[in-house]
Amino acid sequence: MITLSSDFGSPYPAAMKGAILQRSDARLVDITHDFPRQDVTAAAFWLREILPYFPPAVHCVVVDPGVGTERAAIAVRAGEHVLVGPDNGVLLPVARRLTQDFETFEIAYEDPGSTTFHGRDVFAPAAATVHEAGVDSFESGERFERVPEYVDLQFPEPSEREDGVTGEVLIVDGFGNAITNIPGEYLAERFGSDVTVNGAWAPVRRTYAAVEDGSRLVTVGSHGNVELAVNQGRGDERFSVKSGSRIRLRWADSNQ
Amino acid sequence: MITLSSDFGSPYPAAMKGAILQRSDARLVDITHDFPRQDVTAAAFWLREILPYFPPAVHCVVVDPGVGTERAAIAVRAGEHVLVGPDNGVLLPVARRLTQDFETFEIAYEDPGSTTFHGRDVFAPAAATVHEAGVDSFESGERFERVPEYVDLQFPEPSEREDGVTGEVLIVDGFGNAITNIPGEYLAERFGSDVTVNGAWAPVRRTYAAVEDGSRLVTVGSHGNVELAVNQGRGDERFSVKSGSRIRLRWADSNQ
Amino acid sequence: MITLSSDFGSPYPAAMKGAILQRSDARLVDITHDFPRQDVTAAAFWLREILPYFPPAVHCVVVDPGVGTERAAIAVRAGEHVLVGPDNGVLLPVARRLTQDFETFEIAYEDPGSTTFHGRDVFAPAAATVHEAGVDSFESGERFERVPEYVDLQFPEPSEREDGVTGEVLIVDGFGNAITNIPGEYLAERFGSDVTVNGAWAPVRRTYAAVEDGSRLVTVGSHGNVELAVNQGRGDERFSVKSGSRIRLRWADSNQ
Repeated sequence: MITLSSDFGSPYPAAMKGAILQRSDARLVDITHDFPRQDVTAAAFWLREILPYFPPAVHCVVVDPGVGTERAAIAVRAGEHVLVGPDNGVLLPVARRLTQDFETFEIAYEDPGSTTFHGRDVFAPAAATVHEAGVDSFESGERFERVPEYVDLQFPEPSEREDGVTGEVLIVDGFGNAITNIPGEYLAERFGSDVTVNGAWAPVRRTYAAVEDGSRLVTVGSHGNVELAVNQGRGDERFSVKSGSRIRLRWADSNQ
Repeated sequence: MITLSSDFGSPYPAAMKGAILQRSDARLVDITHDFPRQDVTAAAFWLREILPYFPPAVHCVVVDPGVGTERAAIAVRAGEHVLVGPDNGVLLPVARRLTQDFETFEIAYEDPGSTTFHGRDVFAPAAATVHEAGVDSFESGERFERVPEYVDLQFPEPSEREDGVTGEVLIVDGFGNAITNIPGEYLAERFGSDVTVNGAWAPVRRTYAAVEDGSRLVTVGSHGNVELAVNQGRGDERFSVKSGSRIRLRWADSNQ
Repeated sequence: MITLSSDFGSPYPAAMKGAILQRSDARLVDITHDFPRQDVTAAAFWLREILPYFPPAVHCVVVDPGVGTERAAIAVRAGEHVLVGPDNGVLLPVARRLTQDFETFEIAYEDPGSTTFHGRDVFAPAAATVHEAGVDSFESGERFERVPEYVDLQFPEPSEREDGVTGEVLIVDGFGNAITNIPGEYLAERFGSDVTVNGAWAPVRRTYAAVEDGSRLVTVGSHGNVELAVNQGRGDERFSVKSGSRIRLRWADSNQ
C-alpha cells in the first residue's frame, strides 16, 4: 500500500500515480492533495493525526516549498511504515508519533529532466522502489544512505499558568475549527462549565450540537487537542483567530 | 467493496480509510466527500441517484449534524447492499429505491475516545465489520440488533394541477442546475414546446446544447426529474431559485 | 486499469464508477474530475501531459460540451492504450504523443434513457467493454467500427523571430502558472539571464525558489514548455495574461 499526500490540487497528482503504477502494482490511497499550499506545518499536523490510523504502508508526501533547491529527499523508517518526502520537517511529527525509534535515510536521485515536479520525478519513483524492495531494503540498497541529521519540526508547546493555559492556533481546518496546541486533558474536568478565551466567555462542551446553531464553544477535537468552534459555523471567524494566533484559556473558577 | 460518502471535505476522510484498512482489505470507492455540509436531504438525494448503479457493496455514509448526541448508528440491509450511517434519514431514500424489503439494524458501539469524529471511530469500523462478516451476518452477530423504528426521510411530492404541476427544488448541483421533485414524465410529450416556470416562458428541450449558450431551458436530468438549467451557465441564478423554492410549471396549451 | 477524467466535479463521477464496476473489476484511477468546465483544449493539454506516465490502460475521458447532440463517441487505440470519449478532439493530442500510429473507432451505442449523462450511460460502459474484451477486440467486435475521420485538435505553434519567439498561453494551472505553447528548448542557454515578456523584464530561472517570494520569473515547467510564474504567487495575475494571451519573448542580448 502506498498513500499519497500533497498540496498539488488537481490534476498534477495523477502524474505521480502514473509514475508509481509504471513501477509497482501497489494499492494507492489518497490522503489528500489539498493541504494548504506550501504549508509544511499544517501538512505535518494532519499527517501526524491521520497516518497512524493506517496499516503498515509507504507514505509518499510532497509539500515542498524548496523544490529544485539543494534540499535533500529523505525516507524515514518508522516501525513498519516508511515515509518518503522532502527534508523539510514535514515527515518528523508523524514519524515521532509512530515510534521513537525511527531512522532517516537520504534518497539518492539523478537530476530529473524537470526541476519543478519532484513529486512525479523523484518522490513517486522512490516510494515505488521502497514498496517493491520492502521495508528492510534500506541497508542493502545503494539508493538509500543512512543520515543522522535531518531538518526537524516540532510544534510549539503550551505554557501552563496558575489560572489557565496559554497556547496558539496550529491550524484552521476546512470547517473553520481552530485547532490549538493545547492538549485536551486540560479540559477533562471542565465539560459543562465555562472558560474565557482571550478574555471572552465560552462554554466547554463535548459536542458541537451541545450549543445552539451559530453559537461558540470550546471543545476537544478528534485529534485530542483543544479546538475553538461554532456549531454549524466557523470558529476562526467568531473567535477572531487564525493559524499562529495566541490563545489564553482562563478557568471560570480562578477568580472565585 | 466499501463505498464512502461524507460532507467532510479534506483531509478527514483519509482517517476513515485508514480505520477501514486496518480491519479489511476491501476495495474502497469514494462516492464524494463534498456533500453540502450537514445537508441530510441533499445527501439522501444523491445517494438515491448514485448507489443503485453500483454492484452489491457496503456503503458507509457520514452526513451527521447530530454527531455526539443520542442519535443511533444504523445499518440498513437492502437486497445485497448494506448501508451504514447515522439514524437521521439519510439512508432511507436509497434503501427504498434498492428494494421495498429493506431491514434496519441498530449498531451497538462503545463510546469512542472522540465524540466528534464518529466517521472514523464508529461508522468506518462498523462498515469494515459488516464487510468482513458478510451481508448475512446481522442475525448472528451481537453487534447489530434489528430495530423496527428509524428516522425516515421522504422527499416532498409534487401536486398535479389542471394546467400544469407544482413542485419544489430539491437541490442545486455544482453546475447550478436546479433539480426539482417533479418527475420527468410530465414533460414526455412536451419536448420542443414551451412551458412557463413561475410565470415566465422557457423552452423544454432534451439537451443543454439545444439552446444557445447562456439561454434558459427546462429539461429532464440524468436523475429523471425536471431540471431548470442554463446552457453553459447556472440555472439557479437565471430562474432565481434555490433549494426549497416552489416551482409552478404551466403548460403552453392550457390557455388556448 | 481504467482511468477516469472529466469536468463533472462532484458527485456525478461516482455514478460512472458504479457503471464500470457493474461490468468489470478493473482497477480504477481518477485522473481528475476538475478540468475547467467544457474546456476541451485544457483537458486535451493535461491528458497529453499526464496519461503517457501511465502503464497501458483504458482511459475514459468525458469533457463533452456537445453531449446530447449528434457528435459521435469514439475509441482511439494508441499502442497499448485505449482512449474512450467524445469525438471533439480532446483525445487527439495525447493519442499523437503516445504513438503516431493511433487508430480511431466509432462506438455504436443505443440512445440511453438519459440524454444528458453520457459519461455514465455511454462512455463508462464502453470503457468497461473495451477493458474486458482487450485492446485487440476492436476488429472482431460489432460495437466498434473503424473510422478514418474524426474531429482533430492541434495546439497553436509558436513563431520564431530574429530576437526571440512569439507564442500564446495555452492554459493557466491551479497555482496560477501560465503555461505557454513555447518549447522549453528556447530557454536552454538562457537560465540565469533575463528576457523581456511582452516588453517587461523577467529573470529566467530553473526553479521557483530561485527568486524571492512574490517575484516573477520565466521558467520551464514539468510539461517542458515555457511558463510564466511567481514564486509562491500567481503568474497569470502578475504577468496580466490568461488562456489565449499572446506572449512575446525577446532575448536580453538582442539589442546589444
